[in-house]
Amino acid sequence: MTSLADLPLRDDLRGREPYGAPQLDVPYALNTNENPYPPSPALVAALGKAVEDVAASLNRYPDRDATLLRADLADFLNADTPGAGRTGRDVWAANGSNEILQQILQAFGGPGRTALGFEPSYSMHPIITEVSGTAWVDAHRDEDFGLDPAAAVAAIERHEPGIVFLTSPNNPTGTALDLATIEAVLDAAPGMVVVDEAYAEFRRGGTPSALNLLPGRPRLIVTRTMSKAFAMAGTRLGYLAADPAVIDALMLVRLPYHLSAVTQAVARTALAHRAELLGTVDALRSERDALVAWLRGLGLTVADSDANFVLFGSFSDRRAVWEGLLERGVLIREVGPPGWLRVSVGTPEEMAAFRTALKEVL
Amino acid sequence: MTSLADLPLRDDLRGREPYGAPQLDVPYALNTNENPYPPSPALVAALGKAVEDVAASLNRYPDRDATLLRADLADFLNADTPGAGRTGRDVWAANGSNEILQQILQAFGGPGRTALGFEPSYSMHPIITEVSGTAWVDAHRDEDFGLDPAAAVAAIERHEPGIVFLTSPNNPTGTALDLATIEAVLDAAPGMVVVDEAYAEFRRGGTPSALNLLPGRPRLIVTRTMSKAFAMAGTRLGYLAADPAVIDALMLVRLPYHLSAVTQAVARTALAHRAELLGTVDALRSERDALVAWLRGLGLTVADSDANFVLFGSFSDRRAVWEGLLERGVLIREVGPPGWLRVSVGTPEEMAAFRTALKEVL
Repeated sequence: MTSLADLPLRDDLRGREPYGAPQLDVPYALNTNENPYPPSPALVAALGKAVEDVAASLNRYPDRDATLLRADLADFLNADTPGAGRTGRDVWAANGSNEILQQILQAFGGPGRTALGFEPSYSMHPIITEVSGTAWVDAHRDEDFGLDPAAAVAAIERHEPGIVFLTSPNNPTGTALDLATIEAVLDAAPGMVVVDEAYAEFRRGGTPSALNLLPGRPRLIVTRTMSKAFAMAGTRLGYLAADPAVIDALMLVRLPYHLSAVTQAVARTALAHRAELLGTVDALRSERDALVAWLRGLGLTVADSDANFVLFGSFSDRRAVWEGLLERGVLIREVGPPGWLRVSVGTPEEMAAFRTALKEVL
Repeated sequence: MTSLADLPLRDDLRGREPYGAPQLDVPYALNTNENPYPPSPALVAALGKAVEDVAASLNRYPDRDATLLRADLADFLNADTPGAGRTGRDVWAANGSNEILQQILQAFGGPGRTALGFEPSYSMHPIITEVSGTAWVDAHRDEDFGLDPAAAVAAIERHEPGIVFLTSPNNPTGTALDLATIEAVLDAAPGMVVVDEAYAEFRRGGTPSALNLLPGRPRLIVTRTMSKAFAMAGTRLGYLAADPAVIDALMLVRLPYHLSAVTQAVARTALAHRAELLGTVDALRSERDALVAWLRGLGLTVADSDANFVLFGSFSDRRAVWEGLLERGVLIREVGPPGWLRVSVGTPEEMAAFRTALKEVL
């Protein structure tokens, strides 16, 4: 039998394992930061109908530029930043924000260039970076998982990265950035600055989005996704807002017809039902804040969270805690600095199951 | 206003234009080799229903490994090559065969490696290659667009490519390869050999698929798509058959959850209705053969075609012919060697419109 070692794999990929949390069939899946609330029956019917409508011409290629979807996404973002007046020319979409990030690296990274991130952070950033042939360097967040502007600027001056990744709120810590920190990074960075806002809709009051910094800053890219707050993880729709020149760059590397007619129709239908889909965000934020308080009440250390998950610790044997929870039907994520664990915020019922299980394990 | 020139674009992308045929709204679109026959009302309803069924859990991520879809694709390929006994472990799927090709380049190409193709051929091969940081070298097909095994082997020995692209039938010429040529290439190639069979279902009798060569040849990859014969261009579903070790390699570079739950459901429904969808292939092959004969009757030079398009020429001013057809509502493709044009095979009505328009233009 042939094994991977027998094939002419790229040298720097040898010994790697595929990325991914275990996909296990458990009663309580609190490991991938999904929104636990499924679409309503009315929305389910609307999604089926939308696909039925496009199905009659599925023998044809989709709109290669996803014009209508991008206009809808621009409308949606404009509600978050009144007065921005964005159009579809200021927005780009792809199959999940992972594909967005890959296209950014293909256009602005590559051999001889470097991307910088501040760890602990989203573990796909270095993977997508290195697969694109870009070198990855990591700097570090503070003890409390915040980012000190002076330290960030020093790291940028040391490494002169072609791309800087910021995350706000950060995964897996839940930490949001203030705009002054992002501005300091933008001023110091010689290349592109990506602010990954996958969890932006969950942030607490008073934390403005990096979208507010876009006007006049063509090296800034803000990425978003419909997988988290928007409760559409199965649809795989990521997007970004940026200067139209950035989108011109991505057009050079995007695979033609990368977004199917079906994806475009489903995402547009979800956007039309945004009131329903985002209607669960407030409940999830309350549940999150209660979870943080409860974990602290147990005497655990808990990171402040602006996202739909909570990082807590620290445990001398986090694997044992993770396994103990799994034995009780609760799947969380063994991720982040040694000793910490991450739990997604679910429904009240799911959180009750988590609390019961954790008390037993501890 | 910012322009692309102001951004830190990768140096080798400067001056490029985005790939893509014009997407124009015309009465007769014969430019992208789509299958002209839309799904039946029954299939349209089944596709809508399939998405409605998965929509109820769209808040959750899809099966990351697309297990059921890959098993269905293996079943389908087994019908083409009886006795192969393929399972989902021998098949991989992605958003169009472009993403399949990109993953192959990410795993087996990259900086310091070379991919070789035989031109004229599919123009995305060099683009995807170079975006991945792999060097592209092109060798040439014969005068009649065939591939001489000795010339192919000589090119491989000269360039020692990490990846060789073969296409059968070839786009834009329609030329199929015999298995002896593919075997000669496999024997000479030091790396992976990709046989792009996007148009395989249209090949004339007596031309076996490269699928037959897979057993015992782990460096061979055969790619297919549901965009052409399968009449599902809007779905964006490409796939490959290869040794399971090849799929282990692609798992290292694939973006996690790259195939949406919706794409998986739509593709599986289309596969379940394969009798209907592929039921148009015989009619299209007859239409193609009649088109080749008719064009030759006009005194034009026409490449033999095993695909759902025909390359014909040669014209001292092909642009003028292309424009004359477009003025008459018929959009074909200005592609291939200088002086040649490519027309997709459509319905009898579309072909009649093409013939009428071409006679007027000439």
